[in-house]
Amino acid sequence: MLGENADAIRRKIGRAVEVVAVGVRDAGKPRGISGAPLTTDVEAIVDDSQVEVVLELIGGLDPALSLVERALAGGKHVVTANKELIAKHGARLTRIATDRGVELHFEAAVGGGIPLVQPLRHQLAGNDVLRLIGILNGTTNVILTRMADQGASFEEALEEAQALGYAEADPASDVDGTDAAYKISILGGIAFGRWPDVDQIFREGIRAVQREDIRFADILGYRIKLLAIAEPHGDRAIIRVHPALVRKDHPLASVSGVYNALWVHGDFVGDVMFSGRGAGSEPTASAVVGDLIDIGRGTAGGGFGSVEPIEDGLDVLPIEEIRTSYYVRLIVPDRPRVLGAIATAFGEQEVSLSAMEMRVYDQAAELGEIVLMTHACKEAHFRAAVDSLVPSGCVVRVCNWLRVES
Amino acid sequence: MLGENADAIRRKIGRAVEVVAVGVRDAGKPRGISGAPLTTDVEAIVDDSQVEVVLELIGGLDPALSLVERALAGGKHVVTANKELIAKHGARLTRIATDRGVELHFEAAVGGGIPLVQPLRHQLAGNDVLRLIGILNGTTNVILTRMADQGASFEEALEEAQALGYAEADPASDVDGTDAAYKISILGGIAFGRWPDVDQIFREGIRAVQREDIRFADILGYRIKLLAIAEPHGDRAIIRVHPALVRKDHPLASVSGVYNALWVHGDFVGDVMFSGRGAGSEPTASAVVGDLIDIGRGTAGGGFGSVEPIEDGLDVLPIEEIRTSYYVRLIVPDRPRVLGAIATAFGEQEVSLSAMEMRVYDQAAELGEIVLMTHACKEAHFRAAVDSLVPSGCVVRVCNWLRVES
Repeated sequence: MLGENADAIRRKIGRAVEVVAVGVRDAGKPRGISGAPLTTDVEAIVDDSQVEVVLELIGGLDPALSLVERALAGGKHVVTANKELIAKHGARLTRIATDRGVELHFEAAVGGGIPLVQPLRHQLAGNDVLRLIGILNGTTNVILTRMADQGASFEEALEEAQALGYAEADPASDVDGTDAAYKISILGGIAFGRWPDVDQIFREGIRAVQREDIRFADILGYRIKLLAIAEPHGDRAIIRVHPALVRKDHPLASVSGVYNALWVHGDFVGDVMFSGRGAGSEPTASAVVGDLIDIGRGTAGGGFGSVEPIEDGLDVLPIEEIRTSYYVRLIVPDRPRVLGAIATAFGEQEVSLSAMEMRVYDQAAELGEIVLMTHACKEAHFRAAVDSLVPSGCVVRVCNWLRVES
Repeated sequence: MLGENADAIRRKIGRAVEVVAVGVRDAGKPRGISGAPLTTDVEAIVDDSQVEVVLELIGGLDPALSLVERALAGGKHVVTANKELIAKHGARLTRIATDRGVELHFEAAVGGGIPLVQPLRHQLAGNDVLRLIGILNGTTNVILTRMADQGASFEEALEEAQALGYAEADPASDVDGTDAAYKISILGGIAFGRWPDVDQIFREGIRAVQREDIRFADILGYRIKLLAIAEPHGDRAIIRVHPALVRKDHPLASVSGVYNALWVHGDFVGDVMFSGRGAGSEPTASAVVGDLIDIGRGTAGGGFGSVEPIEDGLDVLPIEEIRTSYYVRLIVPDRPRVLGAIATAFGEQEVSLSAMEMRVYDQAAELGEIVLMTHACKEAHFRAAVDSLVPSGCVVRVCNWLRVES
C-alpha cells in the first residue's frame, strides 16, 4: 500500500514515507517487498535513531510488548494492529506514549479497515455511549453464516472455513470468543474512558451452537450471531461475548460471512452502524496506513479519547447479574401437565415467557421438543430456572440455551 | 449537549467549554438555553476577542458565508453544519483557514451524526477511493420508503412526510436532489482531493418516480433509492444524484426512512459502510460537538485530507458520458413484432437487454406494459434508443426510465 499509493500518501502527509527496515523472523522467505532491507534484528529497528514510526504487525505479546514499550520509551510513534497487546496493556502503553509525547495508534486492532477506534475517540466523543454491539470476529461469522445457509453442523462449517483459509488450524481464539473479547475490551475502554480487565469479560464461544438452534431461531424470526456487547452500568460496565439471537430486521442480522460491524448507540447521535471487511492483509493495511498518515500530518494526537491517557479500573459486572432475554430448547416427555410444570419452574424464578414452539421429537419414545423464549430477566434467575427443569422431572434434557439481544 | 454532557466533554478536552454568546434572529423566542447570553448582533460574536471557536448553525449563504469568512480571517476556529456553504465555498474557506492556521470543521454538513467526513480524511486516507455511493437525504428516503411500504404515490407520501415534520413546506431542495448534490460534492472533494463545481453535478430528483416503478422494481428484485454517487474517472470524476434501482441484497437497499448511509469502496479497505440518522438536532449536535472536542484537544488539524487545503478544479463528466444499466417502462401496442422492434431499436444503439417483464395494460385498447432492463451502456446511447421508440411506432408511451446501480 505504501508503494502503490505512494504519491497520494506523500501529498497527504507533505513528505514521503520511507521504509527504513522490515523486521522479519526469516529473512530468506520471499515477501514481495521491494527496496526495503529485511532484517531479523528487530531490536535494532526500534533502537534505530533514523526510525520515527514503528509499525508493529507481529501479533501476540512476545516479543511485541517489549518492542512496543521500547519504541515508545525511545520517543518513537507506534502503530499497531495487535488487539491482545492493547486489550491487556493499553493503559500502560498509552501512559508511556503520553509521558513521552508520542503517538500510539491501533485502528487496525479492531474491525480491520473499518474506522471504529478513531470515530469513537473523535467524532462521537461528545456522546455518552449507551451501548456497543459488535460482530467483531470474521471466522465465527463465516461459520455461523455457513451453518445458517447450508444447514451445516459447527464441525462441518469449521472444517470448510479452515479449508478456505477463514479459520486457523487452531481456531480456539476465534471460536471461543477470546479474539472478540480483546476487541470489545478496547472499544469499551475508548467509549467509557477506562480500560476493563479483559479477564473479567465473560466469553462464550460458538462450539455449542447447533443447527437445530439456528433452525428454530429462523422460525422465530432471528439469526444467531457471535455478539460482543459493552454498556455502562453505573460506575461499572457490562461487557460480554457470546452467541445470541438477533431479530432479522436488525441491521446486525444482515452482516454475513467475513464482514464485521459495530452498532453504536449514543445519547445524542442515536444509532450509528459501521461495517466492512474485518480482517485480511489489505483492510489491515488500510487502517495502519491511515494511522501512519495521521501521525505524519501531526493530527493524531491529544491522548486516547481524552487529554489524559485512559487508565485501568473499569469494573465489569459478573455475567450472572446482567438482564437480557433468553432462548432455550428442551426435550420433554410428551404427556399432559408438562407445559404447566415448565411454566411454573420459570415463574418461580420470576422469569416470564414470551414465545413458544413445540413439535414431536421422537414419537416412539413419546418425546417432544419445546423451544421457549423469555422476557428480559436477570441471568442468575434464568439459570436457576433452567437448572431446576431436569430435577423436577418435567424435562428430559436441556439441549441448549442462548441469550437474545434486541 | 454541551450542558448535559459537560463533565465528559471537559474531561476529554482538558478544560470546560464556555458558551460566550448565542447569536439569534429573534432574542425573544424561548430556546431552552440556560446561562448563555442571547444576542441578535451576530457580527459582534465573530469579532469578539474572547471567542475562540465559532459554531455556524445558520444554514444557507447569507449571512453564514460572510460570518464564517470573517471568523476565520480573524483567527477563530469554525465548526459548521452548512453543506451549501462548504459545497460552494469550501476551497476558499479552507484556504483562509490554512493561511490563518485555524481549523474549519464540517462533519455535521453530511450525514448528520454519522462520522463520514473525518473517516475519509483520516482512517481511509491511504486508500484510492474508487467509489462512494450515498443515501444522503432523509426526506426523500422517508418518501420512497413510504411509497414502497404503503403503495403511496409521490404526492401522498410527500404530504404525509410534511405532516410528520420529515419534509419542509417547500421541499424542493430535498426532493429535487440539491441537498444530496451538496453533500456528495463535499465527500467527493475530500475523497478525490479537489473540490468539484457543484453546478456541474447532475441531479435528478424523485418527483417522477411512480408507484408502478417501485412495484416492478420489487418484482425484479430491486428497491428504488435516491443515490448520490461519486467515482474518479481519469483526471475527472463522475458525480451524480438521481433515483436508482438497487438490488435488494445490497446493504444500501435496507437503509430505510430517516436513515442515511455511505458506502465506500477503497482500493485497500474494500467495502465499508456507515449508517445512522442523517438529520435532526441531536445527531447534528453530536457531530458539531465532536468537531469542537477535536479543536479543543488540538488534534483536528493538518489540512483538509492533505497538508494543503483542497483546491477547486475537479472536473465532472457530463451525465451523457457515464456508463450504467437502465430500467425502462413502456406502454406498447399488444401485437406481434413489437418486441422485436423494441429490441432492434436498442440494438442499433449497441444497448443490450438483460431482463424483461410484460403484462396486459389495457385489454380493450389492446395495450401492453413492458419493463426492460439493460446491461451497462453509455447514457447517450441509451437515451438515443429510448428517444427513437415512440417515433418508430413500436411504443405508445415511455412511462419512465431510471438508472440501475450494482
